[in-house]
Amino acid sequence: MSLCVVGSIAFDAVESPFGERERMLGGSAVHFSLAASFFTDVRVVGPVGEDFGEDEYAVLHGRAVNTDDIETISGGKTFFWRGRYEDNLNTAHTEDTQLGVFGDFEPKLSEASRSAETLFLANIQPDLQRRVNEQCEGARLVGLDSMNLWIDTARDSLVQTIDGVDLLFMNDAELRMLTGESNLLRAAREAMGMGPRAVIAKQGEYGAALFTPEGFFALPAYPLETVHDPTGAGDSFAGGFLGYLASQGEGAGEDEDVLRRAMAYGSTLASFNVEEFGTERVQRLTREEVDGRFDDFRNMTAFAAVPSA
Amino acid sequence: MSLCVVGSIAFDAVESPFGERERMLGGSAVHFSLAASFFTDVRVVGPVGEDFGEDEYAVLHGRAVNTDDIETISGGKTFFWRGRYEDNLNTAHTEDTQLGVFGDFEPKLSEASRSAETLFLANIQPDLQRRVNEQCEGARLVGLDSMNLWIDTARDSLVQTIDGVDLLFMNDAELRMLTGESNLLRAAREAMGMGPRAVIAKQGEYGAALFTPEGFFALPAYPLETVHDPTGAGDSFAGGFLGYLASQGEGAGEDEDVLRRAMAYGSTLASFNVEEFGTERVQRLTREEVDGRFDDFRNMTAFAAVPSA
Repeated sequence: MSLCVVGSIAFDAVESPFGERERMLGGSAVHFSLAASFFTDVRVVGPVGEDFGEDEYAVLHGRAVNTDDIETISGGKTFFWRGRYEDNLNTAHTEDTQLGVFGDFEPKLSEASRSAETLFLANIQPDLQRRVNEQCEGARLVGLDSMNLWIDTARDSLVQTIDGVDLLFMNDAELRMLTGESNLLRAAREAMGMGPRAVIAKQGEYGAALFTPEGFFALPAYPLETVHDPTGAGDSFAGGFLGYLASQGEGAGEDEDVLRRAMAYGSTLASFNVEEFGTERVQRLTREEVDGRFDDFRNMTAFAAVPSA
Repeated sequence: MSLCVVGSIAFDAVESPFGERERMLGGSAVHFSLAASFFTDVRVVGPVGEDFGEDEYAVLHGRAVNTDDIETISGGKTFFWRGRYEDNLNTAHTEDTQLGVFGDFEPKLSEASRSAETLFLANIQPDLQRRVNEQCEGARLVGLDSMNLWIDTARDSLVQTIDGVDLLFMNDAELRMLTGESNLLRAAREAMGMGPRAVIAKQGEYGAALFTPEGFFALPAYPLETVHDPTGAGDSFAGGFLGYLASQGEGAGEDEDVLRRAMAYGSTLASFNVEEFGTERVQRLTREEVDGRFDDFRNMTAFAAVPSA
């Protein structure tokens, strides 16, 4: 099945304890697309400026991502984000954000994108997310990410948007903020009550948890000695997750076994993403490496029942 | 195999968003003993004051914990701790600590305790821990817990004590503080370099991780809608963990399968412990409930390999 993602396409400047980059390809839709491309056909939708060129397209085309719905705004500049991570790498300090062409973005989806069976609404203003969802009448499985900014400034719109999706991806703090519940299990149940069938709580260095009507599932993050740049980890997670789901055909979003494997593929892609800056690691990642780490996740979480006496 | 624990025996006053208790049985050695008692014979070593009476002994004897090495200091008062938890329940605010008989505690172990095959040095001053370890010549498997206070004020002694144990139980922040490594995997490896064969990182609401020469294993915490009182969760974890190991005979501390099951039993006991105040829940816990939740842990972490094409 084909997968469509709407979100930011950006240039990022990042400084972490392990180095810095002044200008590299980034954005939620980019990280998502590259991760999902290991499993299914991906179409990316979003605006760029005239500064977005061959090198950037080459990264996306290198992973066979369809860029027909990337719209170049003449005279515009691509969305820019500058961030800095401190020693613990858990918190990004935003030092600069220039919306550029994102300032008055109105998504126009091609027929092909509108008929994608799976849709991911990456973190953008919730009104925009909802209008995209309304255009995508063919979508049978819709995932959504958001952030504290929209919970703060556009809560009603966000809640309305969440009502129309199947899978909600948020970090712990955002789920608590959205629902006003400090207990994560209660927060997840409250969020499921807003519409989605399942909630995925992203927990950074602690991994991720999946809440479904069937119950609870959780995976640790892959243990890494060095994390160079956490930017895009959550979108890579969602890309691996939804890419795998999209590859499993109809009903995958309600199949507990498939959802759990999607958690492992999401965790796998997120772990590779953070090993180097920006898209550097995922650009040269192979499917063999992906499957190898998927197996590592099985090995590092499995334990046997108590042998019978 | 028999298991001996040295640590605090206390009265606790606790306030959490779900209620409060003015005076209840607590202390690291108590929480540990009760948890471990589901798996093996346990002997508890520590001092109490004259205010420690029949009701308190009854709780320990109710779980068949051997209290012969609890020493009553005449004219003394039992260790007292008062703490308060805020909404998120992750951080305990200490409001009062009265060392009482713990002020000049010098452990005197009976022959039976000295010959226990498994020993747990609960969180007390590291010189004391080391002297106990030296007395226990029969111990083939020794676990140790500590805290930020001793890392701060008695680091050299703590490092020397850690060198003599097999299993180190600490929370994430303590492991980072002990080693000066912000990355948890590096911190755990550094800690293993100090002597212990394995390191167990306690992660509160995120569960726990096990680092051994064989690799990495992690389990989420059991999802609970309501946590009444997190006091003693870490000691209940260690009790379930070491109690199960002790029940598995010689070599259990180097058997990866057994260690992973110990992680699940530890997580199980910790999860029951926090469901109610103090020892209330564990006092009436049954082995059947323990094994049921152990199976829940398997169910909520298992996922299947990708079916072959």
